[in-house]
Amino acid sequence: MIIQLKLDITEPQKESIILEINQMGYKITEVKTQLGEYLVGIGSKEIDIRRIGHKEGIQDIHIVSDEYKMVSKKWKAKPTSIDLGDGILIKDGDMAIIAGPCSIESEEQIKSVIQHLKDNGITMMRGGVFKPRSSPYAFRGLGLEGLILWYNLAREAGIKIVTEVMQVSQIEEMYPYVDIYQVGARNTQNFNLLDELGKVDKAVMIKRGISGTIEELLQSAEYVFSGGNEKLILCERGIRTYERASRNTLDLNAVPILKAKSHLPVIVDPSHGMGIRAYVPQMALAGVMAGADGIIYETHQVPELAYSDGQQTLDFAQSALLADQIRKTFALRKTFSLL
Amino acid sequence: MIIQLKLDITEPQKESIILEINQMGYKITEVKTQLGEYLVGIGSKEIDIRRIGHKEGIQDIHIVSDEYKMVSKKWKAKPTSIDLGDGILIKDGDMAIIAGPCSIESEEQIKSVIQHLKDNGITMMRGGVFKPRSSPYAFRGLGLEGLILWYNLAREAGIKIVTEVMQVSQIEEMYPYVDIYQVGARNTQNFNLLDELGKVDKAVMIKRGISGTIEELLQSAEYVFSGGNEKLILCERGIRTYERASRNTLDLNAVPILKAKSHLPVIVDPSHGMGIRAYVPQMALAGVMAGADGIIYETHQVPELAYSDGQQTLDFAQSALLADQIRKTFALRKTFSLL
Amino acid sequence: MIIQLKLDITEPQKESIILEINQMGYKITEVKTQLGEYLVGIGSKEIDIRRIGHKEGIQDIHIVSDEYKMVSKKWKAKPTSIDLGDGILIKDGDMAIIAGPCSIESEEQIKSVIQHLKDNGITMMRGGVFKPRSSPYAFRGLGLEGLILWYNLAREAGIKIVTEVMQVSQIEEMYPYVDIYQVGARNTQNFNLLDELGKVDKAVMIKRGISGTIEELLQSAEYVFSGGNEKLILCERGIRTYERASRNTLDLNAVPILKAKSHLPVIVDPSHGMGIRAYVPQMALAGVMAGADGIIYETHQVPELAYSDGQQTLDFAQSALLADQIRKTFALRKTFSLL
Amino acid sequence: MIIQLKLDITEPQKESIILEINQMGYKITEVKTQLGEYLVGIGSKEIDIRRIGHKEGIQDIHIVSDEYKMVSKKWKAKPTSIDLGDGILIKDGDMAIIAGPCSIESEEQIKSVIQHLKDNGITMMRGGVFKPRSSPYAFRGLGLEGLILWYNLAREAGIKIVTEVMQVSQIEEMYPYVDIYQVGARNTQNFNLLDELGKVDKAVMIKRGISGTIEELLQSAEYVFSGGNEKLILCERGIRTYERASRNTLDLNAVPILKAKSHLPVIVDPSHGMGIRAYVPQMALAGVMAGADGIIYETHQVPELAYSDGQQTLDFAQSALLADQIRKTFALRKTFSLL
Repeated sequence: MIIQLKLDITEPQKESIILEINQMGYKITEVKTQLGEYLVGIGSKEIDIRRIGHKEGIQDIHIVSDEYKMVSKKWKAKPTSIDLGDGILIKDGDMAIIAGPCSIESEEQIKSVIQHLKDNGITMMRGGVFKPRSSPYAFRGLGLEGLILWYNLAREAGIKIVTEVMQVSQIEEMYPYVDIYQVGARNTQNFNLLDELGKVDKAVMIKRGISGTIEELLQSAEYVFSGGNEKLILCERGIRTYERASRNTLDLNAVPILKAKSHLPVIVDPSHGMGIRAYVPQMALAGVMAGADGIIYETHQVPELAYSDGQQTLDFAQSALLADQIRKTFALRKTFSLL
Repeated sequence: MIIQLKLDITEPQKESIILEINQMGYKITEVKTQLGEYLVGIGSKEIDIRRIGHKEGIQDIHIVSDEYKMVSKKWKAKPTSIDLGDGILIKDGDMAIIAGPCSIESEEQIKSVIQHLKDNGITMMRGGVFKPRSSPYAFRGLGLEGLILWYNLAREAGIKIVTEVMQVSQIEEMYPYVDIYQVGARNTQNFNLLDELGKVDKAVMIKRGISGTIEELLQSAEYVFSGGNEKLILCERGIRTYERASRNTLDLNAVPILKAKSHLPVIVDPSHGMGIRAYVPQMALAGVMAGADGIIYETHQVPELAYSDGQQTLDFAQSALLADQIRKTFALRKTFSLL
Repeated sequence: MIIQLKLDITEPQKESIILEINQMGYKITEVKTQLGEYLVGIGSKEIDIRRIGHKEGIQDIHIVSDEYKMVSKKWKAKPTSIDLGDGILIKDGDMAIIAGPCSIESEEQIKSVIQHLKDNGITMMRGGVFKPRSSPYAFRGLGLEGLILWYNLAREAGIKIVTEVMQVSQIEEMYPYVDIYQVGARNTQNFNLLDELGKVDKAVMIKRGISGTIEELLQSAEYVFSGGNEKLILCERGIRTYERASRNTLDLNAVPILKAKSHLPVIVDPSHGMGIRAYVPQMALAGVMAGADGIIYETHQVPELAYSDGQQTLDFAQSALLADQIRKTFALRKTFSLL
Repeated sequence: MIIQLKLDITEPQKESIILEINQMGYKITEVKTQLGEYLVGIGSKEIDIRRIGHKEGIQDIHIVSDEYKMVSKKWKAKPTSIDLGDGILIKDGDMAIIAGPCSIESEEQIKSVIQHLKDNGITMMRGGVFKPRSSPYAFRGLGLEGLILWYNLAREAGIKIVTEVMQVSQIEEMYPYVDIYQVGARNTQNFNLLDELGKVDKAVMIKRGISGTIEELLQSAEYVFSGGNEKLILCERGIRTYERASRNTLDLNAVPILKAKSHLPVIVDPSHGMGIRAYVPQMALAGVMAGADGIIYETHQVPELAYSDGQQTLDFAQSALLADQIRKTFALRKTFSLL
C-alpha cells in the first residue's frame, strides 16, 4: 500500500494516519523524495481502505501487491522522465544513446571520443574510472583524477557523464562530476550502496545483476527510491546462463516486462549483453524493437588497444553507423502501436 | 575436412581418395545428399592438403575446424535456400512468416486460421498434431487424422504445413502431408530421429534444445545433413534459465551467431521464447532486427479457448498487426549494412 | 485422484465408477500395470469423495494434488522395490552398486570388468551399446551384437545388465538381454519411448534430463507407470548450469527431495555428475549420505584407453576402494535416523 | 609467478628483483601479509627463472599459471589453518561446526542458542546483525548494538563469533567483537570490501556468489590475500540454477575442486544450499563426505518464530542429532584415503 501525502500535510495529520495503519497491522516506512512524500505500508492482511481514505492530508492511496512498491507502475502510470539538464532527457517515448569506452584511459582518448560523439549528435558518454575486476592484479581505472579530467573536457563539450560508482565513500567525491551514477552488475544487491544513493539528487542507473531476476532489479531500485531518490534508470546487460558462445545472454524479454511493471525508463547494453563486436549492432537494434528507452554501448578509437573489453567495443565508424540505425529503428517503432 | 566430390566421379577414383585420407590418420564419413556427394574427414592431426589435392574426381577441399562440418559456413559461403514450392522460400535475404495455433483442434479451427493467413498474405502455417506434453494425462493432439484433415484444407488454400514429428515411425506416415518437419526442443538430441530425417527429401526445422547450446544445435543439424538431407532450418525458441518472469529466455544473441557460423536459415519463435501474449510482438520484431530469416508465432481465433499455450497466442487482430510490423521492420533492416 | 481397484472388480462396477467421476468433471485414465489396476482422475475442482467412496470394486481412494500421480508417495507410502532376480534388489533400505565402462568395447574388456565386479561383490554392470553422441561422426557403440556378447558373458557370471535404450524399435530387440533399460538424459522427455517402456515388464531407470527439473523427472516416470510398468528407478546424474569447472553440477539436493515425493528408488551417478575422475569417489559417498538407494559409476581396466568418458572413469583399484567405502558409508547412514 | 621473499630481505635487494622482473615484461604487485612478504608477477610471456633465481633475498619462486595466485595450492601445498584462539581451529584434517540462527534477535535468543551449543560441544556461533535483504522494507538486523550484546554473552561462554560484514565502514566498528568476518553471497564481488578486509588480522569467510563460479570465488579470496590477510575460509552455499524445488542448488562438486586448487579450508552451508529444514541434515553429511573442513548451519529454539529463514532452520533437537552425525561421518571419512 502506498499513501501519497499532500505537500501541505501537517505533522499531526501524518501521525494520525500512521497510527491508524499501524493499528491495521501494517508496518510503515516513510519515504520522502525530492518530488514527494509517501507512506509505504507493508503487511499481508486484507485491509479496508475506507478506514483511512477519509483522513486529511492524503493525496491518493494505491494498493500495490508487488514486493516492490514505489517503482511499480500500479501507483504511478505516468512514466518517469530523467532530466539531465540542457534539454537532455532519458524517458519513455524517446531514444537515449549513451556511448563511450569501457575505461577512461587518457586525455587524448577522452578527446577523441567526445569529438566522435559530437559528430554524431550523441550527448551522453559512458566510461569507467573505478573498474570492478575479477582479479586484483588487473587495471582498476584512473580513479577520481580521471573523472575530473573527463569532466572538464565533457562539460565544455556539453556531454553528460555516466560512470560507475563502486562504494559508498565514492558517492560524495564523485558528486560534482557525475550526471548519472551507474551501479554495476556486481553491485546490484550492494544494499548499503543503494541506500546511500537514495540520498543524492542525481540520477542512478542500476544494471541488472549477473544472475539477477527482474524482480530483484526492481527491488534494488526500490531501495534507492525508498531512500529518497526517484531519478532511476534500469539497465538490462545480459545474464549468466550455461551458454558460452556469447559473453552473457542478453535477456531482451526483460525489456517489455520491466516497462510493463515499472514506470522507470529501461536501457539496453548490447556490448556486455553480447560481448562480441561484430554482433553488437544487431542486438542494439533488437533492443530498440523490444521497447528500450535507450541504448548504452562501448566505442573506442582503436578497440584493439582499449585497456578493457576491446573485443566488444565498436570503432568510431561502426558507432556512427549504429547511432544512425538506432534512430531509424526507433522512428519506425514509434509508428507501431506496441504495448 | 570436407571433400566435395565431382558429380561424375568414378568408384575407383573415390576409393583412391578414401584410401589416401585413411592413411593420413583421418576417419571418413561418406555423405550423399540430394544435392551432392561429400567425404567428411575427422581427425586431429595437421594434414598436408597437397597429398590429395591433385586427385581426380575432387571438386573442392575445405578445412573446417568446427565440430560440425557440413552445416558450417566455412565451406559453403552461399546461404542455403529452402524451396517449398509455389514460390514459397525460406532463405537469407527474405522474411518468412509462419503462423498458426499451438495445436490443431478441429476443421472449423483450421479453416478460420487459414482464412486469417490468406487475408494477411501468410503462406506457411504451424500447428501440432502430435504434442509432446510433460504429463501423460494432457491432450496429446489429433494425430495423423488431424494432419490429413489439415492437409486437405491447406493444400486447397495454397498454404504450406509446418508440424512436429516426434518419433521415427511417424516420418513415413506424415510424409505426404508435411512441408516442413519440425523437431521439437525436447527432441533436438533425439539422434535416431535426426538420422532418419536425413533420409527424407523434405525440409526439417530443428528447434534449439530446452537447454541446448548453439554448438549442440549445429551438431544436431549436422546429423540430418550427414544423413543426406540438406534442407535444414534452425530455430531459436528460448532457453531455460533461472529467470521465471518469462516462460523461457529468448536468446536472440543466438541469431547473429548462428548466421555467422552456418549457411542455414534461422527462424525465431517469440511465442515460446517469451510465453506471454502481450510481449510476443516486441520480441518478434527484436528477432527481425537481430537478423532472423523468419518468425514463427502462435495465433488462434480465440486464444483463451485454445487447447494449449493460449497464454502466449495472439488473436487474429494482433497477428495481422504483427505480420505488417514484421514486414516493415524487415524492410528497414534490409537498408542497413549488418553482418 | 487415484482410485485403486479391487483385483476382482467387474466391468459394470468399473463403468459405474468411471461414469460417476466423469460426471464430477474429471477426466479418467485407466492404468493397468503388472501389479494392479487404477483409475487416475485429472481435474481441478474440489470433489466430494463420498460420491464414489461407497461404490463396489474400489480398494482405496487417494487424493494426490501433484502433477504426477502414480509415482507420488502420497498414495503409496511403501517404497517400491525392484527385484532383478537371483536375490538382486534395488530398494530403499539397501545400497545398490552398479559399475562398468561407459561403452562396451570388446569381449576382452567385458571379461575384465566382470572379473573385477565379481572380485568386489558387485552384481550389476553398466555399459553402453547404443551411444547417444553430440556429433554424428563419433563412435556410436557396438549395437545389438555387442549386447548379446555381453549378455552371454554376464549371465554366466550372474551379473545383471544395465544399458541405455535410445529408441522405440530397440526395446523389443534388446528385451532378452537386458535387466534394466536405462533412459538417458537426452531422452528423459522422449515421450514415445517412455510410453513404449510402459508396456514391458522389465525395470526402467530414468536419468534426469540435462536441464530437467525434479518435477519433470517424476512426470517422465509417470509416463512409464501409467503405461503399465511400475518397475521404475530414478537417477540423478548432474544438471547443466553456468559452472564449467565440473562437467555437470551434481544436484544432490534432488536425492532427499525425490525420496520424499516418490516411492521410487533413487540412484546417483557421480561419474557424469562430476566428470573428473579424481573427485568421483567423494561425490559417490556424498550421494550415499544424501540418501541414495544406489550408486552407478564408470570403471574400466585402463581408463585412458576407454572409447568414451575416460576422464571420469575409475580404474579397478579405485573402483574396489570406492565400493568398499560406499558400503561402509551406507552402514553408518543406516545407524542415523534421517528422513 | 610468486616470489616468496626472505624475512630479512633488504630494500635494495627487493628493488633489484623488481627491476629485473619488470624488465622481463611482468607487472609486479607487492603482497605483505601478517605471515610473509611476496612479489606477485603477472604476465603472459614464458620467462626464464634463472634470470632471477640467483638473486639475494629470495626464499622461493613458484610458477602459478592460474588467474589466482596466492590462494593457489601450486605454491603452498601445506593447507592453511585458521586459529581462532582457545584451541579453536578451522583446518584441513579437522571438522569445524558452526551453528546458530539466521538473525540475532534478542538476549534471550542468544542465551538459548549458546546454551544449546555448549551442551553439544560446538564452539563457533553464526548469526546476522547486519542483514542483506532483497526488499528495503524487510527486517535488517539489530546492528552493532546486537553484536555487542552477543559478544558479551559469547565471550563468557567461550564461543567464537561468525557474522556478516556488509560494508567497508562496518569493518572497524565490528572489529573488537568478531572472530570471523563473513562476506555474504551478494558481496562476493564487492571488491572494495574485499580490499579492506585484506587489511585486518582477523579471519574472513567468503561465501560463493549467488551465481559465482569456483574460479571467481578463488579470485575474490585473492583480493583479500593480496591485500595482506592470509586468514581465509571459503564457503559453498548453493548456486542459482533453473531448479526451484530447492532454494538453491548446493554444488558439492565445488568442495573437492576447491580443496584441490587451493590451500584454504572449505566450509559447506547446507541450510542456504538446500533451504528446506527436513533435508538439511542429509546435505550436511553429504558435504562432509564431499571433503568439507566444516559445516555451518542454522538453528533456533523455535524455528517457526525466527525473524528470517525459519523454513531452513533446525530446532535444537535436530541440531544436536546432526552435530553428532557430522562427527561420526567425519570420523569414518578420516579412515578413507580420499584426495
